[in-house]
Amino acid sequence: MQRIVECVANFSEGRRTEVVGEIVAAISATDGVAVLGWESDVDHNRSVVTFAGEPAAVVEAGFTGIQVAAALIDMDRHSGQHPRIGAADVVPFVPLYNVSMDDCVRLARELGARVGKELRIPVFLYGEAALRDRYKRLAYIRRGGYERLRECIRSRDDRRPDYGPRFLSSAGACAIGARDILIAFNVYLSTDDVAVARRIARAVRESSGGLPHLMALGLLVKGSAQVSMNLTNYRITSIHRALEAVRQEAHALGVAVQATELIGLAPKAALAATAASYVQIDNFSLDRVLEIQLAHRFGLDVE
Amino acid sequence: MQRIVECVANFSEGRRTEVVGEIVAAISATDGVAVLGWESDVDHNRSVVTFAGEPAAVVEAGFTGIQVAAALIDMDRHSGQHPRIGAADVVPFVPLYNVSMDDCVRLARELGARVGKELRIPVFLYGEAALRDRYKRLAYIRRGGYERLRECIRSRDDRRPDYGPRFLSSAGACAIGARDILIAFNVYLSTDDVAVARRIARAVRESSGGLPHLMALGLLVKGSAQVSMNLTNYRITSIHRALEAVRQEAHALGVAVQATELIGLAPKAALAATAASYVQIDNFSLDRVLEIQLAHRFGLDVE
Repeated sequence: MQRIVECVANFSEGRRTEVVGEIVAAISATDGVAVLGWESDVDHNRSVVTFAGEPAAVVEAGFTGIQVAAALIDMDRHSGQHPRIGAADVVPFVPLYNVSMDDCVRLARELGARVGKELRIPVFLYGEAALRDRYKRLAYIRRGGYERLRECIRSRDDRRPDYGPRFLSSAGACAIGARDILIAFNVYLSTDDVAVARRIARAVRESSGGLPHLMALGLLVKGSAQVSMNLTNYRITSIHRALEAVRQEAHALGVAVQATELIGLAPKAALAATAASYVQIDNFSLDRVLEIQLAHRFGLDVE
Repeated sequence: MQRIVECVANFSEGRRTEVVGEIVAAISATDGVAVLGWESDVDHNRSVVTFAGEPAAVVEAGFTGIQVAAALIDMDRHSGQHPRIGAADVVPFVPLYNVSMDDCVRLARELGARVGKELRIPVFLYGEAALRDRYKRLAYIRRGGYERLRECIRSRDDRRPDYGPRFLSSAGACAIGARDILIAFNVYLSTDDVAVARRIARAVRESSGGLPHLMALGLLVKGSAQVSMNLTNYRITSIHRALEAVRQEAHALGVAVQATELIGLAPKAALAATAASYVQIDNFSLDRVLEIQLAHRFGLDVE
């Protein structure tokens, strides 16, 4: 029985392509792992590498990726728009196929223990893998970033890592966790005023009273204000709901949506629902997708 | 080597569900054929049955469907909003998998010859299977409908069928052809004035100077004016281009788009492109669809 787990690792390097290249090469050299895609952002100074495979292989690839990142990225010299605490900043496991969330929790803890012990990097277990309630939210772990964590990791018990030493080397710390599929989706605005993006982010995100299962930040990226979002349950808050909420807030502030981008992958149901919604299709279901029918009826993979 | 051809058969019955049920049952009882979906429209008084399988099986199922429809549908008692010439009105073959357009042309001619001879139904070969240039366009064959064709099939050489007798029984005639995938897409307007739908259809369709590869008719369906469209090359004129053209024309006439519907199936690339366009995603490709990656990398069919 084939079992597939996904890992969406975020590294604090988006400028030196040779460094990102080495991390991706190390991950994809792991037996039984396929890199599904990766992308770097110069302003975030951050890269996201999506890979998948058998659970044990993905843990191994995750470890290798963290190890290479820790060796090549110096957090004391890192600056970027995106909050971060370490070279390998966030490493979540996502159940995809014959893998449960409990399995992913186990994988996260296994990798966390190994990273703490072998690489001497402080590890915070987050999301479904969190051992402490307050660490469930990545925003809690990352508040103040690497700089603040370095100051208080030893002194404050509410910043104590789950594995590894209670001090930071230049590789920083790592949040390792388990979560469901999420959609990372950024909206660029027709302004370079980051305050506008922050105001919109506050208006639309769940934590300040906006849409459920939506996280949002205002950043300055490629010279434009950007609302950077995570949709943690696209069945409840879909791509189009999130986008229309941003569009409406932007409109009220006299700015427009210039472009959007998807980071990593998105489930086809999310895209189909988005198309159906904008096109106002009353009678849409995935059975209407030709390739899905061919796969179901004839076992054909026609891409 | 598996070979799959699709057939999208249109029957002139959309009210008597037992008749449609018998046609669908006959088609799906054919060995090696899968019915991918079907739908009936009361106002069009018409049903569309989409089925697929190995070429010989699909020809057999097409023949059976035409035979059952001819026995159960009396064109002298048929009325509906949609142009039509027979009980089994249009039967196109569409190449899907390891099947070429030339194969589909051969299948159409084979079925046409058999329907003409065994069922004594006049057959017009249309689309890529047409033997005469003017029959390429379905609109040419169907102009004036069953009633007009009955009057002039014998007298006028430009209405001579390719197979079968030169007179119509109450089963009417049948257009059999070969074509590429098309998307059938209807837009409902916030008016019951069919003249508005006709005006919009004229403005957007290729034949009167509108968008390339777009066919459109104005009809009255479920009490609303409807622009009924066929997108014959969705890579050039996409769902969203067609919809936005209709929306713009409607707006100029003071009416709105109330809802839309998809008839039959649509390729996932068309839906993904539609989603990406409305969401203004700059960096979209099908590689970003999770399930497509899983199918490619691990041979998994995760629906």
